Amino acid sequence: MKIFDISWPISKATTGYKDRYIVGIDEIKNFNRDGVRETAIHLSSHSGTHVDAPSHFLREGKTIDEIHLDRLIGDCTVLDMTTCAERITRDCLLAHDNEIMQDRIILLRTTNSDFSPTDKFNPHFVYLEASGAAYLAEKKVKAVGIDYLGIEHSQPGHPTHENLLNADIVIVEGLRLRHVQPGNYFFVCLPLNVIGTEAAPARAVLMEK
Amino acid sequence: MKIFDISWPISKATTGYKDRYIVGIDEIKNFNRDGVRETAIHLSSHSGTHVDAPSHFLREGKTIDEIHLDRLIGDCTVLDMTTCAERITRDCLLAHDNEIMQDRIILLRTTNSDFSPTDKFNPHFVYLEASGAAYLAEKKVKAVGIDYLGIEHSQPGHPTHENLLNADIVIVEGLRLRHVQPGNYFFVCLPLNVIGTEAAPARAVLMEK
Repeated sequence: MKIFDISWPISKATTGYKDRYIVGIDEIKNFNRDGVRETAIHLSSHSGTHVDAPSHFLREGKTIDEIHLDRLIGDCTVLDMTTCAERITRDCLLAHDNEIMQDRIILLRTTNSDFSPTDKFNPHFVYLEASGAAYLAEKKVKAVGIDYLGIEHSQPGHPTHENLLNADIVIVEGLRLRHVQPGNYFFVCLPLNVIGTEAAPARAVLMEK
Repeated sequence: MKIFDISWPISKATTGYKDRYIVGIDEIKNFNRDGVRETAIHLSSHSGTHVDAPSHFLREGKTIDEIHLDRLIGDCTVLDMTTCAERITRDCLLAHDNEIMQDRIILLRTTNSDFSPTDKFNPHFVYLEASGAAYLAEKKVKAVGIDYLGIEHSQPGHPTHENLLNADIVIVEGLRLRHVQPGNYFFVCLPLNVIGTEAAPARAVLMEK
């Protein structure tokens, strides 16, 4: 079984969403003084690879601990979206209609994966347009992942998030997919078990069967 | 496929190791003001369920990002250690000798799982004695998990950690195993992909085949 780590590396240099929230790593104990190393971490719930819960954008939405992990574990298809220059529309996805099946986890591999994980935030990242999100909702996929710190921009009212979250489709942001070939895998994404928040940092892997 | 979440819930009320490090969850945006919810989290690298890397106790040891995830993914046995009152010795484990196999991940289910995840820290938790750790190192298991925030106490020099980490056995602390029957599972534990730290918070699951 081959395991691909598709998680964004977390450090003080990690790109922040709109360059706003910087990760902190504090030394609590060190070898010279304490004979042991210990650190503490502070980060946004949306730093690096993370899962958005419905309560991020929906007033009555579920929090991250209320998302069943079976939505984030299962058969997955990585779609090659590197030819979509700016945004992933319904038409882009229709070209892969036979690969997008009910209860599947769909990962969108775009040219975003070419950015370094410590670059300044790129506001022009390739995003999933509302029409693409509506299509994935019609197809009843289980979860959607994308290789940047957000899944949409330049759409007033966040319709991509609303289309997905209203359809109970889990959103995984901040994946790294450059080293992964398009195709079928077993996907496991485990967000921290934080109680009551609208998102949580996560680690995600693909396993080749 | 049935999934068991065996992760410690993380909140401001989460038990801290020796009651020292309290988890913080800060509101960054809220619905009334911003039309969206957003939080930030600060926690110890050893809060709740977490993985210790060798560099926690070994000066030249690997950091958490240097641990291959195949050490934390694979066939696993949950051992019933609820009859071990204070500590898990070599003799306790010898009773399960036929279940403890090379390259397996061994989880120790003790009476620690009866504690609430928000109780005050219990310094008398059931721990893995150095002799038990030496036995697991001889058996060449891949990883060892325990259902409390530490894997040892009252042993000067931390010999349990040293026996395990020197044998390249990964240590998972802070599991919750009360709802899981002893037996065989597929285990996935994914620590956050933090660069350069001696540990990282993680989420862990068992899957029933």
